[in-house]
Amino acid sequence: MSSDNSIRSERLLRRLRELGDIGREADGRLVRLAASDTEKLGRDRVASWIRDAGLEVAVDRIGNMFGIWRPVGYELVDDAPIMIGSHIDTVINAGIYDGCYGVLGGLEVIETLKEEGFMPARPIVVAAFTNEEGVRYAPDMMGSLVYAGGLDVDAALATVGNDGTVLGDELSRIGYAGPQEPGFLRPRAYVELHIEQGPVLEREGIPIGAVENLQGISWQRITIEGDANHAGTTPISMRRDAGLAAARVITFLRDQARNSNSPMVATVGCIAFEPNAINVIPSKATFTVDLRDPDENRLQTEEAALAAFLVEIASDEQVSVTTERLARFQPVTFDKGIVTLVEQAAAARDLRSRRITSGAGHDAQMIARIAPSAMIFVPSIAGISHNPREVTPDADLVSGANVLLDVVRKLASEGAQ
Amino acid sequence: MSSDNSIRSERLLRRLRELGDIGREADGRLVRLAASDTEKLGRDRVASWIRDAGLEVAVDRIGNMFGIWRPVGYELVDDAPIMIGSHIDTVINAGIYDGCYGVLGGLEVIETLKEEGFMPARPIVVAAFTNEEGVRYAPDMMGSLVYAGGLDVDAALATVGNDGTVLGDELSRIGYAGPQEPGFLRPRAYVELHIEQGPVLEREGIPIGAVENLQGISWQRITIEGDANHAGTTPISMRRDAGLAAARVITFLRDQARNSNSPMVATVGCIAFEPNAINVIPSKATFTVDLRDPDENRLQTEEAALAAFLVEIASDEQVSVTTERLARFQPVTFDKGIVTLVEQAAAARDLRSRRITSGAGHDAQMIARIAPSAMIFVPSIAGISHNPREVTPDADLVSGANVLLDVVRKLASEGAQ
Repeated sequence: MSSDNSIRSERLLRRLRELGDIGREADGRLVRLAASDTEKLGRDRVASWIRDAGLEVAVDRIGNMFGIWRPVGYELVDDAPIMIGSHIDTVINAGIYDGCYGVLGGLEVIETLKEEGFMPARPIVVAAFTNEEGVRYAPDMMGSLVYAGGLDVDAALATVGNDGTVLGDELSRIGYAGPQEPGFLRPRAYVELHIEQGPVLEREGIPIGAVENLQGISWQRITIEGDANHAGTTPISMRRDAGLAAARVITFLRDQARNSNSPMVATVGCIAFEPNAINVIPSKATFTVDLRDPDENRLQTEEAALAAFLVEIASDEQVSVTTERLARFQPVTFDKGIVTLVEQAAAARDLRSRRITSGAGHDAQMIARIAPSAMIFVPSIAGISHNPREVTPDADLVSGANVLLDVVRKLASEGAQ
Repeated sequence: MSSDNSIRSERLLRRLRELGDIGREADGRLVRLAASDTEKLGRDRVASWIRDAGLEVAVDRIGNMFGIWRPVGYELVDDAPIMIGSHIDTVINAGIYDGCYGVLGGLEVIETLKEEGFMPARPIVVAAFTNEEGVRYAPDMMGSLVYAGGLDVDAALATVGNDGTVLGDELSRIGYAGPQEPGFLRPRAYVELHIEQGPVLEREGIPIGAVENLQGISWQRITIEGDANHAGTTPISMRRDAGLAAARVITFLRDQARNSNSPMVATVGCIAFEPNAINVIPSKATFTVDLRDPDENRLQTEEAALAAFLVEIASDEQVSVTTERLARFQPVTFDKGIVTLVEQAAAARDLRSRRITSGAGHDAQMIARIAPSAMIFVPSIAGISHNPREVTPDADLVSGANVLLDVVRKLASEGAQ
């Protein structure tokens, strides 16, 4: 593998900023929700860059957009492409890197390979998957999920958004309801370049994360019910305090995570008390639990420990507890061969790397169902993402894209197995 | 003291129900907010009963209403009256006993004493204090606070309600801005009959509570600030989780209360997280703390323990903590002589009694500033109050009023000290 050739960093950085200005509102907030007018403008811009690079643009029925480099003039070893991708839809008040870095980094890698005269053994494709963020339409990672066969395309197109729109109508309206069946290109390998969205790489001063797995996610809503009695007149021993019971669950989860030897994380992000009055003992506490672990067995063990604690709390505090499952994703283990390639590519460029777990969901976890997949992470300053303060230093953006370049060059050189 | 004579229970119970129907809305909810149109109707009804009983009606500038029995035909030992009182304003969706029982019970006692030919050594007065609930105008217990000199009457009249009205205007509009200066009758003793609004008497099967003191109240709003990072990508050790810190404060307060040998109670009734998203670590948690203890030194010790724990939490969890004092009332110790009279009166009627602490605020705590005061509690089923399910069995209502009768008969027999 040669490291002599590198991406054209100024082109990548310029495009990142240009795309980051599409969907910017009067107050400066970046909002480019899936299948919206502003996302159409973003798609148009990316499509024009894909065409400028001499690639073929293809769109499937769920709106996933592809830039396909199918070299002509020689016989390919195999038609199954190497796919590089991510998404260009954003959250509300987003940063400019989440998703876009993977799409534009992928395009940059293909352009560089073309420019350096590289002759791939198979097609190379850059993909921008529809509705990764899931802000307007649920679930998130929808385009890649449909592409991997995990959700029926017609069901997905019928999704009603939180603004009352239907995804299929919106995709037609903006001109991105394509003719291809999702999954029409079955990749030989998939690589996704992404900002970490967490603090680990920056804290440790390591520019490249070789993402070896992705945490399983367990989301629950827990409702605890007690009695709304007077805060002054009800002795502690006679209380059925739903708020206190909720607080005990929160500290229990923290203790579990802290005492675990695993990368388990547990978060209570939402809470509400009823009647929510200063002098009334809460009769009801509703809160969410977000549990994540890269190991499915451990995740199940943690869910069971929580369930057992809820039984204990119900008895201890004389409250009733109900739980509702909001989401559940199994952990994903990425392809060891590609992860090793990422480490080797970093080392060849004298970049420190470490294996890392993705705590967030990504399109790669869906595509991993149909192809060997992995991800490359670059540092996020202070771990901030989904926020205008989301920043990755230019040098790290360039390093990550160069590692992707080398990995793709290697993958696209290999013959069919 | 004679227990031969008793109140006319059917008259008391009938009036309680009649007053409880004034302010009943179309949906059945009882709402008789201070100085409102419906409260005017309630005041008019009570005033007519006072007149029917042959008492003089007086109203002071803050709208406190009095029924004065000043016997004629013999020389009184002293002009300082025995005052019996409470309030007739209600919360929204109230029960019919809170406050009204003390006013109508007081009127019943005076009528009974008149009817039995009792010749008091001093006047006896029933009082209905303005705006005890504090729902429409803050602070609560306003009428009795003004009466006791704790708040300037003109400042109180200028209070703007949560509906934008000015209390003084509303009192004039409903015809209850009286001519008397608050405090115009300085009682020799004050007794207030009230439902417990807590579960202790009912749980213990005791019909009479001799209220010996009233808890001090310390209300604070606590704001904890951390960092809103991604719930999946931020390792536990790198978190500044405001929600977890709040939960630790809640469990700390419960532990303090449970391990205390005092009747201390601690309640966190209100809470809010920001940004309140399932997959975001809370950057901000705001919650209220309601601490109560009948002993001022202990209450201060508990406030100090909480403050020390907040310092510890700020360091442990790397969060910043700010506190805001919302209210602070010192505990009130009621007059030992009157408390003993209550116990003796109960015993003479073969009613079990126990000394009890009031966990709620009452007009008696204000009048205690200017006169020896105490309260008589009767059981509240399940401790429920401020709620249409607020119930005290008729037999207990009658027992409480008879105990009040005997206490007042005794107090009104005594000469000037």
